[in-house]
Amino acid sequence: MPHEIAPRSGVAFTIDKGQTLTVIDPRGEQVADLLAFNRDDIGEVISSGRTLDYASRIYLTTGDPLYSNRSNVMLTIVEDDVGRHDFLLTPCSKDTFRIIYGDTDPHRGCFGNLAEALAPHGVTPDMIPIAFNVFMNVPIDGTTGELKVEPPLSKAGDRLVLRAEMDLIIGLTACSALQSNNGSFKPIHWMVE
Amino acid sequence: MPHEIAPRSGVAFTIDKGQTLTVIDPRGEQVADLLAFNRDDIGEVISSGRTLDYASRIYLTTGDPLYSNRSNVMLTIVEDDVGRHDFLLTPCSKDTFRIIYGDTDPHRGCFGNLAEALAPHGVTPDMIPIAFNVFMNVPIDGTTGELKVEPPLSKAGDRLVLRAEMDLIIGLTACSALQSNNGSFKPIHWMVE
Repeated sequence: MPHEIAPRSGVAFTIDKGQTLTVIDPRGEQVADLLAFNRDDIGEVISSGRTLDYASRIYLTTGDPLYSNRSNVMLTIVEDDVGRHDFLLTPCSKDTFRIIYGDTDPHRGCFGNLAEALAPHGVTPDMIPIAFNVFMNVPIDGTTGELKVEPPLSKAGDRLVLRAEMDLIIGLTACSALQSNNGSFKPIHWMVE
Repeated sequence: MPHEIAPRSGVAFTIDKGQTLTVIDPRGEQVADLLAFNRDDIGEVISSGRTLDYASRIYLTTGDPLYSNRSNVMLTIVEDDVGRHDFLLTPCSKDTFRIIYGDTDPHRGCFGNLAEALAPHGVTPDMIPIAFNVFMNVPIDGTTGELKVEPPLSKAGDRLVLRAEMDLIIGLTACSALQSNNGSFKPIHWMVE
């Protein structure tokens, strides 16, 4: 049975090399921010810049490896029902809601949820990098460079499966930003096998 | 008189709030990787993810602020002769040359140059994020997500000027990757005023 992440919250857990992590969108149109740290040395962390450089592509899917800042493969995508995820933007935060949404009493967002969940593993807020934003749909206009946050393409039950290529600490959220999730906050399911 | 960064090397220096940093491409088609750290707390560092999210654009130019991981403005672009810079890719490294170019005895790249130049300021290699890659030309195909590293659009003498919005430590290179610089390694000039 999968675990459930409640709307606008987040968790951290460990996963062993060779195990798979399945991220499920149980209702559709819900984003999950994913972070990975090397369990033996948390200075090694998932890196969008390395991954996109080696892939020569900003949209990653089945078969694509996710690299660390030290250019080691941390995870490989082995199944993908959706084919559209974002790897450009940092987890939403108090500041995101203040700056983009104009909220006066902003939610702590995925950033705050990840910071709290990862703290027992020794991860401090400044160590949180750009997340692999599962199911997040951020199209780019190649001419102007304009980016938009559009509704996820995921439907109820759609899954992303990743294989761990090293022992990892994972941070995972049910994303807290209205725009990223087509205007409503929903849960995320996950399992390790 | 501007300072010169020799081909395939890098420097670090401090700049005060309110000063401007001018980055000059003296011969044309040469990239300079730029990093910024808060001088009073080096855990605060330039963040592509925050900056692109707030700009809603991947190509930044005159008037655009460059944000930190804590969502404070570190630098503002105040003059830009070129209008095309990259903020997606990490500094080239030994691993870049090994993985992308197949080099058996790879150069340490901008990453190694930045790590050495920033070490006296307390910055460790794992603290090096995605750089603001001045003059780097990385077009994206909006449909497939494919990215290409193409020759810079900068001509001899072209400049980018940034105003410091806090006291900063800057890391700056003359980029070491053949593809980024149209096949030759050239110097970069800079000045603080």
